[in-house]
Amino acid sequence: MSNTFGNIFRLTSFGESHGEAIGGVLDGMPSGIEIDVEKVQSELDRRRPGQSAIVTARNEHDRVRILSGLMDGVTTGTPIGFIVENENQHSADYGNIKDAFRPSHADFTYTSKYGLRDYRGGGRSSARETIARVVAGAFARQALAQIGIDVYAYTSQVGNVALDSDYRRYDKNEIEKNAVRCPEAAKAEEMERLIMKVKGEGDTIGGVVTCVITGVPVGLGEPVFDKLHAMLGAAMLSINAVKGFEYGDGFGFATCRGSEVNDSFACTSAGEISTLSNHSGGIQGGISNGEDIYFRVAFKPVATLLRDVATVNCHGENITLKAKGRHDACVLPRAVPIVEAMAAMVILDAYLMNKSTHL
Amino acid sequence: MSNTFGNIFRLTSFGESHGEAIGGVLDGMPSGIEIDVEKVQSELDRRRPGQSAIVTARNEHDRVRILSGLMDGVTTGTPIGFIVENENQHSADYGNIKDAFRPSHADFTYTSKYGLRDYRGGGRSSARETIARVVAGAFARQALAQIGIDVYAYTSQVGNVALDSDYRRYDKNEIEKNAVRCPEAAKAEEMERLIMKVKGEGDTIGGVVTCVITGVPVGLGEPVFDKLHAMLGAAMLSINAVKGFEYGDGFGFATCRGSEVNDSFACTSAGEISTLSNHSGGIQGGISNGEDIYFRVAFKPVATLLRDVATVNCHGENITLKAKGRHDACVLPRAVPIVEAMAAMVILDAYLMNKSTHL
Amino acid sequence: MSNTFGNIFRLTSFGESHGEAIGGVLDGMPSGIEIDVEKVQSELDRRRPGQSAIVTARNEHDRVRILSGLMDGVTTGTPIGFIVENENQHSADYGNIKDAFRPSHADFTYTSKYGLRDYRGGGRSSARETIARVVAGAFARQALAQIGIDVYAYTSQVGNVALDSDYRRYDKNEIEKNAVRCPEAAKAEEMERLIMKVKGEGDTIGGVVTCVITGVPVGLGEPVFDKLHAMLGAAMLSINAVKGFEYGDGFGFATCRGSEVNDSFACTSAGEISTLSNHSGGIQGGISNGEDIYFRVAFKPVATLLRDVATVNCHGENITLKAKGRHDACVLPRAVPIVEAMAAMVILDAYLMNKSTHL
Amino acid sequence: MSNTFGNIFRLTSFGESHGEAIGGVLDGMPSGIEIDVEKVQSELDRRRPGQSAIVTARNEHDRVRILSGLMDGVTTGTPIGFIVENENQHSADYGNIKDAFRPSHADFTYTSKYGLRDYRGGGRSSARETIARVVAGAFARQALAQIGIDVYAYTSQVGNVALDSDYRRYDKNEIEKNAVRCPEAAKAEEMERLIMKVKGEGDTIGGVVTCVITGVPVGLGEPVFDKLHAMLGAAMLSINAVKGFEYGDGFGFATCRGSEVNDSFACTSAGEISTLSNHSGGIQGGISNGEDIYFRVAFKPVATLLRDVATVNCHGENITLKAKGRHDACVLPRAVPIVEAMAAMVILDAYLMNKSTHL
Repeated sequence: MSNTFGNIFRLTSFGESHGEAIGGVLDGMPSGIEIDVEKVQSELDRRRPGQSAIVTARNEHDRVRILSGLMDGVTTGTPIGFIVENENQHSADYGNIKDAFRPSHADFTYTSKYGLRDYRGGGRSSARETIARVVAGAFARQALAQIGIDVYAYTSQVGNVALDSDYRRYDKNEIEKNAVRCPEAAKAEEMERLIMKVKGEGDTIGGVVTCVITGVPVGLGEPVFDKLHAMLGAAMLSINAVKGFEYGDGFGFATCRGSEVNDSFACTSAGEISTLSNHSGGIQGGISNGEDIYFRVAFKPVATLLRDVATVNCHGENITLKAKGRHDACVLPRAVPIVEAMAAMVILDAYLMNKSTHL
Repeated sequence: MSNTFGNIFRLTSFGESHGEAIGGVLDGMPSGIEIDVEKVQSELDRRRPGQSAIVTARNEHDRVRILSGLMDGVTTGTPIGFIVENENQHSADYGNIKDAFRPSHADFTYTSKYGLRDYRGGGRSSARETIARVVAGAFARQALAQIGIDVYAYTSQVGNVALDSDYRRYDKNEIEKNAVRCPEAAKAEEMERLIMKVKGEGDTIGGVVTCVITGVPVGLGEPVFDKLHAMLGAAMLSINAVKGFEYGDGFGFATCRGSEVNDSFACTSAGEISTLSNHSGGIQGGISNGEDIYFRVAFKPVATLLRDVATVNCHGENITLKAKGRHDACVLPRAVPIVEAMAAMVILDAYLMNKSTHL
Repeated sequence: MSNTFGNIFRLTSFGESHGEAIGGVLDGMPSGIEIDVEKVQSELDRRRPGQSAIVTARNEHDRVRILSGLMDGVTTGTPIGFIVENENQHSADYGNIKDAFRPSHADFTYTSKYGLRDYRGGGRSSARETIARVVAGAFARQALAQIGIDVYAYTSQVGNVALDSDYRRYDKNEIEKNAVRCPEAAKAEEMERLIMKVKGEGDTIGGVVTCVITGVPVGLGEPVFDKLHAMLGAAMLSINAVKGFEYGDGFGFATCRGSEVNDSFACTSAGEISTLSNHSGGIQGGISNGEDIYFRVAFKPVATLLRDVATVNCHGENITLKAKGRHDACVLPRAVPIVEAMAAMVILDAYLMNKSTHL
Repeated sequence: MSNTFGNIFRLTSFGESHGEAIGGVLDGMPSGIEIDVEKVQSELDRRRPGQSAIVTARNEHDRVRILSGLMDGVTTGTPIGFIVENENQHSADYGNIKDAFRPSHADFTYTSKYGLRDYRGGGRSSARETIARVVAGAFARQALAQIGIDVYAYTSQVGNVALDSDYRRYDKNEIEKNAVRCPEAAKAEEMERLIMKVKGEGDTIGGVVTCVITGVPVGLGEPVFDKLHAMLGAAMLSINAVKGFEYGDGFGFATCRGSEVNDSFACTSAGEISTLSNHSGGIQGGISNGEDIYFRVAFKPVATLLRDVATVNCHGENITLKAKGRHDACVLPRAVPIVEAMAAMVILDAYLMNKSTHL
């Protein structure tokens, strides 16, 4: 179950960081959708290493190859198989980490669970795994666009540099104008400076991504266990390095009174119902209410430091891991397209699930 | 899919607040486990209305009746069917809310999605639905106890009254000693006072539940989409009124550097590996690492106020809802056993899933 | 997974033969469907023991109680919980079969798998389990009726007494006119005589049920693994005592040439496409083609004989089981509504699955 | 759901006949299993076109490329991605079948369901799809071999040329000694002659494959809906051209009495329990009983004839399809490894599912 995501719109993914390829199968994609494969590629380019000075310098082109499910650029309703070949998989020397358990990495838990692990570049636990998510999300987005749903995310916090929590204060068209993917130029600069400083110290830093979904019709999400926000939360928490999820006012609700945060309804003269405020984050009783959906995702700092680190190995010996390799000092900029991809997949899945509500 | 939870250990639930009964089917319960049905009942008693002055006065006895799957008190491996009859289902008059859409309730979204809704006491969207979760969780806990796993939760915040974030500072044996289920007596009193004050004003208040799981072996959780914390997060976010989830240092990671929060490994002379700190919250790469698992769950204030409320109805008219009924001013005390139940279900499910890792 | 059936329209069932109750949860039922609960009961009455001289004399009234999911007789989109209480669960003395492994029963396999078994009346392996299927099927049928789909089945063979394989030769309105549920009166009489003869000898006899589904629109069924006939086959093979399934010409295809059994297409002047013959049984490439779907299901003779039987017990001793109890000499008459129920569930499920084919 | 097979051991497949590649993702493969990739390839070679005079002359080498999940030839517990590139995908001219609906093919149903179809070589409905099954089955077999389970199948009937129904009369080592995969040399020759004759006439012929599984421990299969034979039946019925499935005595039970076909138990002095006969086919109550599992699968004749065929096209016009291409006159020889593959996948899945029966 672990490598399949979704109920009707489903991604099954595979691939290790330094194996032959990363890829997946996308099942349940509705038929008859025109797909712009270049747009799929451009989403991949947004998560690609080496795209700017503040992300890892590892250089992979990450070209996606679609193997099935399209005919003359249109989805046929059959599964979409795709792969992204790993370019540098044989180049590295892993002697130093083969037996080591790096702190706050998955080395120890994978080895304990499976009896062995693919130690090359983190194997399956590497964030290269998210390539498959971004490809799948790019398909989902193109389907959602046809029904007027848009998904965007941005870096809203890096360390102590944070935007205001109200996403409506920011222009989504500003997001891609800087390397950190923050819609406010001044804050973006601050964040970049912080990342470069941290990087220079061989350290790493955490942050928050905010995601907004607009145009969602009323009725998506299933009550009880598959509440729309539970699906979104599971999706976000499944991304590497994510440690928290909140939607609407989130943890802020804890200190509030009902009288302050209830969303009153208003009715237009045409009889259309909406809410006057949106503390609920666009979801009530687990079901979308037609307002904007928004949520925040907390990322921990990257576990790999560019410093010598004392740790243990699989033989129970104390060792020192030498600083080595090229890593992100902050995952946030590259996490933005991954958050968007997962959100798009969830919303399309919920949209398709909702179709069976009536005969 | 919406009314089934879990992969191998699965609860499928049913029931409306004022229908005939709430109940469920528990599938995948391992065979040969001795079940103390009185303990199941006592978990239900912990979530029961009317148990103290700070919770709703609605009086239901909520007696569980086990219909299958046990023989002489031992699980047989067949599904456990159970029901809790609703006692007062025909007593109320719903004339005033039949057509109304209460703010921040699910009335509007249910009606929009399904074309109709059971308006009696909130129908399926009522938190009475969680009865089934508590029963299922009580079975899970008894299985987990046999393998040394313990789950406990407590109210760690009500409004601005908050405990320290370090769960190790508190004694779990103190939790049940006060009505608010807070392990520190002084804070518990403060919380109770706050709840009574808010209640007196016809208002409601949010808060946070902290949950701790001890004795979890290394290896539970599946990488990528079914990471252990993603399963826990989905479980918690599926509980009524939950708006946020974080584990380990959670959102606190956003302001931290890797060098501050990486969990270094240590090795005993016997070769046993553990971590010196536990910022990770007992899970690395989505897999339990043998340390305590802990997480925090944010609850919004109850949407139903004991005040007259202006809103709209299904005919698009502005109306005023009269204050009426008996409701919790704060769900936290009764949420504690629900959080524990969901956590227990996830851990048992992950434990059973992990059994197929090796041939 | 074992006690849940279906993908979107899902039955999760529970209950032992002599436990408190048999029941289930029906999830994914579309909202807004008017349900005639008396029709649900009348389907149950068709599978009820004691309904005629040729079936078991065990007398249970098998009254269904719907616990949720309906409001004023209309489905609300929430799960339908239901139970049928077992009336005679405490009356019997099982001393003689408690430790015995009855030949061709599930006693040995259940005990080996689970370490214990509920020996009272066969426990979960009893065909009383099919009560839940019949209830669920009755809901499915009422939904299908709204879209013009009809499901009917009949006993087409008992021992060597067999109808012609062409279902179009028989009138479905004749089926319920005799106890054996065979649409040809003369054959029905022969079958009944055979059953009474076999019964008189303390023996049992097998047979075949034929099922026909009319009005199915083109497009139901998912290619590759969830082919419509694979779903139907799995459904039928999950019924107690079923040993074979074939659709269209079935095993008869083995001796045929393509030129004999290909179904040629014809086109009306209005452009409507149909086939001139229907060897395919209404399904091509796993997808319904708009023609009648028909299939045959083979049942083995009931394993319980009214004779003394030599066997072994759980202590590895040779024992003799005394003839005892009231059992069907032939399951076919009571199997007919069960086959129909499973077929209706599959078709409704496939219908709902198909809704997500397009955006 | 349609392109994923299995519960714990799961294959998700993709690919069209003349697309870029056929492939899949194998999830749930236990870790630590040594895989002989050459054996995987040799299973593929058994289903390969062009392997003998009696199968299609289309020449594809069908080389499998494993993209993930192995490390030094050992499974790591992560998903196994694989592809088989299609070699001749751009060579053909499909002008004649682009708009045609070939009789007893999936052209009409695919087009109706999806609104379009990949007409190149049958697209997804082509039996080339089974390449993914054979690869997955080859992995399953290597895991099963470690626990002493063996799966083999053979052609037991082509047209009217049929073997005896008792598989124990045949030596499995004889199966691969002839092109038709029939363990009796004389019958094999007869079958081959029949196939060549039918082929010479531009016609096709159906048949039956028998499959035997030995060494299965007691306890596999889940009662009620996931009975072991229901899983096997669904697996077989999902294979292209399959129209019937029976296990044990199958449809033969219909004419039998219980006293004739009940399988009596015997007990060795060591207390080991087995059955004296095996009419049940190794499964009782849906659970394996330790005896050999055997079943029969009916295949219809290939729908594509080497004759001119009158049919209709998507514009509702009557047309004549010219005889063209290279096709099997009988799928049986190539179906044998596919049946084995599906059987192996089911048994491994059931084996892994059974691991969670006890804590």
